[in-house]
Amino acid sequence: MSCSLLLQIIGSIGAVSAGLDLGKEGPLVHIGACIASLLGQGGSGNYCLKWRWLRYFNNDRDRRDLITCGASSGVCAAFRAPVGGVLFSLEEVASWWRSALLWRIFFSTAVVVVVLRGFIEYCDSGKCGLFGKGGLILFDVSSVSVTYHASDLLPVALIGIIGGVLGSLYNHLLHKILRKGRMAKLLLSLGVSLFTSICLYLLPFLAPCTPCDPTLDAACPTVGRSGNFKQFNCPNGYYNDLASLLHATNDDAVRNIFSTGTPTEFRPISLLIFFALYCILGLFTFGIAVPSGLFLPIILMGSAYGRLLGLVMGSYTYIDQGLYAVLGAAALMSGSMRMTVSICVIFLELTNNLLLLPMMMFVLLIAKTVGDAFNPSIYEIILELKGLPFLEANPEPWMRNLTVGELAAAKPGVVSLQSIEKVARVVEVLKSTKHNGFPVVDQGVPSPIGMPEGATELHGLVLRSHLIAVLRKKWFLQERRTGEWEVREKFTSVDLAQKKGPKIEERVLTEDEMDMFIDLHPLTNTTPYTVLETMSVAKAMVLFRQVALRHLLIIPKYQGAGVSSIPSFLHELNLLGALLLSPCSPQTAEGLEKFKSL
Amino acid sequence: MSCSLLLQIIGSIGAVSAGLDLGKEGPLVHIGACIASLLGQGGSGNYCLKWRWLRYFNNDRDRRDLITCGASSGVCAAFRAPVGGVLFSLEEVASWWRSALLWRIFFSTAVVVVVLRGFIEYCDSGKCGLFGKGGLILFDVSSVSVTYHASDLLPVALIGIIGGVLGSLYNHLLHKILRKGRMAKLLLSLGVSLFTSICLYLLPFLAPCTPCDPTLDAACPTVGRSGNFKQFNCPNGYYNDLASLLHATNDDAVRNIFSTGTPTEFRPISLLIFFALYCILGLFTFGIAVPSGLFLPIILMGSAYGRLLGLVMGSYTYIDQGLYAVLGAAALMSGSMRMTVSICVIFLELTNNLLLLPMMMFVLLIAKTVGDAFNPSIYEIILELKGLPFLEANPEPWMRNLTVGELAAAKPGVVSLQSIEKVARVVEVLKSTKHNGFPVVDQGVPSPIGMPEGATELHGLVLRSHLIAVLRKKWFLQERRTGEWEVREKFTSVDLAQKKGPKIEERVLTEDEMDMFIDLHPLTNTTPYTVLETMSVAKAMVLFRQVALRHLLIIPKYQGAGVSSIPSFLHELNLLGALLLSPCSPQTAEGLEKFKSL
Repeated sequence: MSCSLLLQIIGSIGAVSAGLDLGKEGPLVHIGACIASLLGQGGSGNYCLKWRWLRYFNNDRDRRDLITCGASSGVCAAFRAPVGGVLFSLEEVASWWRSALLWRIFFSTAVVVVVLRGFIEYCDSGKCGLFGKGGLILFDVSSVSVTYHASDLLPVALIGIIGGVLGSLYNHLLHKILRKGRMAKLLLSLGVSLFTSICLYLLPFLAPCTPCDPTLDAACPTVGRSGNFKQFNCPNGYYNDLASLLHATNDDAVRNIFSTGTPTEFRPISLLIFFALYCILGLFTFGIAVPSGLFLPIILMGSAYGRLLGLVMGSYTYIDQGLYAVLGAAALMSGSMRMTVSICVIFLELTNNLLLLPMMMFVLLIAKTVGDAFNPSIYEIILELKGLPFLEANPEPWMRNLTVGELAAAKPGVVSLQSIEKVARVVEVLKSTKHNGFPVVDQGVPSPIGMPEGATELHGLVLRSHLIAVLRKKWFLQERRTGEWEVREKFTSVDLAQKKGPKIEERVLTEDEMDMFIDLHPLTNTTPYTVLETMSVAKAMVLFRQVALRHLLIIPKYQGAGVSSIPSFLHELNLLGALLLSPCSPQTAEGLEKFKSL
Repeated sequence: MSCSLLLQIIGSIGAVSAGLDLGKEGPLVHIGACIASLLGQGGSGNYCLKWRWLRYFNNDRDRRDLITCGASSGVCAAFRAPVGGVLFSLEEVASWWRSALLWRIFFSTAVVVVVLRGFIEYCDSGKCGLFGKGGLILFDVSSVSVTYHASDLLPVALIGIIGGVLGSLYNHLLHKILRKGRMAKLLLSLGVSLFTSICLYLLPFLAPCTPCDPTLDAACPTVGRSGNFKQFNCPNGYYNDLASLLHATNDDAVRNIFSTGTPTEFRPISLLIFFALYCILGLFTFGIAVPSGLFLPIILMGSAYGRLLGLVMGSYTYIDQGLYAVLGAAALMSGSMRMTVSICVIFLELTNNLLLLPMMMFVLLIAKTVGDAFNPSIYEIILELKGLPFLEANPEPWMRNLTVGELAAAKPGVVSLQSIEKVARVVEVLKSTKHNGFPVVDQGVPSPIGMPEGATELHGLVLRSHLIAVLRKKWFLQERRTGEWEVREKFTSVDLAQKKGPKIEERVLTEDEMDMFIDLHPLTNTTPYTVLETMSVAKAMVLFRQVALRHLLIIPKYQGAGVSSIPSFLHELNLLGALLLSPCSPQTAEGLEKFKSL
């Protein structure tokens, strides 16, 4: 994990400074999630960075919450959009939600934004290069007063519809390209870098020089690194509009396209070249082995498309071309990612123009609806391609017609243990299966706590990691009796939470030890969630996701003597979702257990 | 429901125009929820307003979703804050959440804001009185450029801390006053109205006249109805600052206190009088039988407190007094209502100043934390006082140490039916209990579908309303046999969804009919959610809330022959939450079933 963290930081710095068509939000989200995950594990064991007080977070729930906070902070840092970050986590990242989480995430993004504000204040005088440019608002379009009328609903709807189509087309093409599998990764990276550099440098020669508009306040041609009117190959008093877009950082390019009050600044053909180039780059850059984010490439594409549409509309509308660019970017985002509320808030925080809100919401909803008609969101496509175990929010239709009993019968293999089990059997079960949990069932054995003769008792669920902990510590009993209290005294939650250590195969136990017994009572979760075997898979899945389960026991419907009632075991589904955001690095799946297909 | 709707509309108009210290957001939320609930019932049966296509919404889930959408639209309409409305529902209203709901709510608020924008455009020329003033942003403070430094964190923290204390004090006092029970309602309403009018008119005489500042752009004294500088009893060139606050609509008063760049406009003593008056009014007005909202009174109080604090701070800070007022209002809101993200976004949309965001988040979090140390949020207090059945998000500590089995045993009385039951028994059960659901259990009866001899079968859960529907339609069988398919053909979901009709006591059945049988198979929900009797109440409650259940079956842990295994029945908890927002009207609880205490 810590290795992945370093890779992300270095890779992201390299890729962004190489001028590749990718955003830093993906790596930032990943970095945030990595740091949170490290904290959740109580620091990194490899580098002696363990803090004792962090061990309280070393459980599934807190780790998941921390990772969600980290991901939010990443979005917040990338876009300086604290509320947008919270909502992004809520809408796209978290597979499970509880009210306390909301204000915890809010807290972490608040800290990020206060720190960010402090650094911006400090760097105000240009001490830190381009950092802090734009202040807290990256792409400010608040200067333009938005006036629009009912007649503007039509062009705005058009932006949404075309944005939805383009977004789903992008998803489709990206799916095709990513499916091509692993090419020579280093070569491809080199190729894309080279191609990007060549295009960015050479293409502006295609554009003719445009005379500066003397009525504008802005310096023309641009003085310094960032600005709207790059001189490039043009004489004084002229600027090259394509160079203004291509010879700038990605952030500056977006800022230039969003610029308002300059209807004649960019010629349609320049915007078209820019749009086409960034479509190609956006598709291929994402395929290479570089930490990258999806937001910025789509914003670049979308803003060019929006401004182009604004130019085509010409005198039909009252809306500024800069706002068309903003709406176009939002439409393409929504058409590809299918989020609504979070994109809306992120754009609000990016552009600081609240009056745009009604149109923005309208565009986002149309683009999402149109896009949903064609294919799933880009995140779902990437998750599916990577084969990562993310439980979908909505059950598939076939799940309604299948009971969990039938599902479990179709894939048998649940291994159950007795509440006082032989060491040899535990070792054998651990070696022969890869299950992460085992139901503990006593059948026909009169138990000491008043169980009726001949009955079957479901005692609960025991986790693989806890069994391994017992084997490591050799808490064995000489005879088959319950030693609950003795063992419980020896236990600490820290012992059980420790997950790393030698594998079960490498553990050496003597013959004598193999004949001893383990009392599983103190280790068992005695109140696991259960469903009846007649429950439909769809309903069980809702339960699984809503309560954030990892294991679910299936119990028989008939509670009679004639029925053997060994609980079946719904195959493990894994809900750890927050790590899956930045789909670039092979480390993403680390810590996630393998998904056993239904 | 439709009656409540009319009452809310008329009452709200009357109360707001009487100048009472209350907001229109509560009634608007209630109106939104009422309309949604009417749609969910397929229109109002009383007034022939039934639409056939609306019957598809006539189920629990869609009705709940619709009500959430309606409540969001209400907040959106009150504050012109679409995203804030969505988040308010998410954070405070909805007890259950699913991802599809998010963008549906977003859609409904988008429609509201587009319609609102249309009306504001239409009313621009002053055709509609005060409506549309302020455009889409009610309390615009975007004109001031926010510059602040690290040293400002301290006063901002102070705003938060005092705001949290004041907020929880307000909760405490409101609790005391509301608990006093029912006074002569009409008399109290009259008294509060009279007191409000007298104070608003007479108090400004206490304030001396202030000379106008000639450097300001604004007209002074104010011309027309709204404005910062009311002349009242003063000579020309002078204004009465207390009159500017009191002789205005509530909206205008907030706007005046939020006004930036006017540090000497209000004298501290005027603000103190205003603050004290609105504390008293805020507490008593909420107790009278008038549709009212909590937001605006708290904003009024908080803004006065904030501006006062800003005046006290004086030269210590760089922050404008108007922004102090905004932060003070936010702090008091958060201290009383304990929301964070939604208040943050609502204030952002109210004031249109994104640069305020870091400070706003900081203040909100501090005020919430401080307030939480003293008492629960005002909504929880009101819900508890009204005795409304709202399942809390977090289980109480004692629930961890109690199993659902013990809970059910402490309050027996679950009545179960057989899958083919005598009519007489069904009638008797319906008459003698008020349960809304009955487990269907067959014991020892060999069933036709291959059930083993002597076993107990949990068939499922049947709802009271469905039993009544069967009795109404007289779908009886002559003998004890399963007639599943015949009956199922006769069923439509509309028949079952019809809930109103004569009560069970008034239904006349002949002796012959009483001896017949009902086949419950087609009526039973065969896959209810179940828990084992050893499950802790806390865990069962999480399940109940997360999956939005209304009934939960408890099944025995021992699945042996010697154990009688009649499922116990967790007492019905009711999750219909969205109606509970505006706690003023006795109709609120309509449609909600009575809560049976645990």
